[in-house]
Amino acid sequence: MKSLGSLEQLSEALRRLPGVGPKSALRMTYHLLQHDREGAELIGRAMLSALNMVHNCSLCNTFTENETCELCLNQERERSMLCVVESPSDQLMIEQTMTYKGLYFVLMGRLSPLDGVGPQHIHLEKLVRRATDGQVREVVLATNFNNEGEATAHYISETLKARGLLVSRLARGVPVGGELEYVDPGTIARAMLDRRVT
Amino acid sequence: MKSLGSLEQLSEALRRLPGVGPKSALRMTYHLLQHDREGAELIGRAMLSALNMVHNCSLCNTFTENETCELCLNQERERSMLCVVESPSDQLMIEQTMTYKGLYFVLMGRLSPLDGVGPQHIHLEKLVRRATDGQVREVVLATNFNNEGEATAHYISETLKARGLLVSRLARGVPVGGELEYVDPGTIARAMLDRRVT
Ligand SMILES: [Zn+2]
Ligand SMILES: [Zn+2]
Repeated sequence: MKSLGSLEQLSEALRRLPGVGPKSALRMTYHLLQHDREGAELIGRAMLSALNMVHNCSLCNTFTENETCELCLNQERERSMLCVVESPSDQLMIEQTMTYKGLYFVLMGRLSPLDGVGPQHIHLEKLVRRATDGQVREVVLATNFNNEGEATAHYISETLKARGLLVSRLARGVPVGGELEYVDPGTIARAMLDRRVT
Repeated sequence: MKSLGSLEQLSEALRRLPGVGPKSALRMTYHLLQHDREGAELIGRAMLSALNMVHNCSLCNTFTENETCELCLNQERERSMLCVVESPSDQLMIEQTMTYKGLYFVLMGRLSPLDGVGPQHIHLEKLVRRATDGQVREVVLATNFNNEGEATAHYISETLKARGLLVSRLARGVPVGGELEYVDPGTIARAMLDRRVT
């Protein structure tokens, strides 16, 4: 059986999705082409459109379609507090607890030397610029409580304390080894209230 | 936090992929937009290109970029035998056993009344036209050996025998409940040799 150019290219491309191996990629390809061509068109167009429209907020680094995101522009947020999270999902979890009224910085990753993710990959220079704007007084570290998140928090803490900033960490109400995205808001709320200076 | 149009649209679209729920769709979206924009562009372009190029073979119903696929056009294949499979993956498995020299018909599905998949969804009219071309003498049913595959084989067998065709079924060398894609080629080869008239 000869290979089919376009079909195989699609199957190969789908393997770029996290968690998708060769078998699932092929199954997805067959499914879309035979049973959901409308879905395939939606995905194709949404992908290229998002690439074109979405980039990182100039201040907090989260995804936005504008130069600066709405949360950063919201004048009701306390500009003296900056909460550092790994991802937009983590930020959303914290927002849902209603315990935090400051601003955010989204790393879009975490230190992971074994995977080759160093300080330059988690926008630390941008964070330092942001945290030393003269308005920020306290930086709350809300990275995950697993090994990589703890290492990231430690590294950022040292970097920012060296610049004279007050740095705190969510209290260990969050279970050790836990990832924020899967913790209930009540636990996160308690951890926010119990945050401690590092 | 306000919703982001393009990002949310992409996340929604990715849920059209089989096996992808809201959490994975969001994780895929974040990953592509932050860490693999090249991959995102590959997927978007491959998706739209495949939609444009790939359709079903006029004879065997498998995916092809031409009117008729290369296997159907291959004059070295026996034109008196037609093997019916559920998917291109199953066809590929049979080809790898080197025990079959005839042609194929790919259903691109299987009967599944509980999921609303009836005879009209698995191209049965096209199969009947194909099998009654005057050249086909034997139809080998190689649908899976689970409940849906067996029901599909039974239905096709009755339909084609009513038109005077010789219909056979792969021998039960394939484990009961097994799916062809996951069976070793040796077992499939034995089942092909032991196929029995139904
Ligand atoms: Zn922002
Ligand atoms: Zn064909």
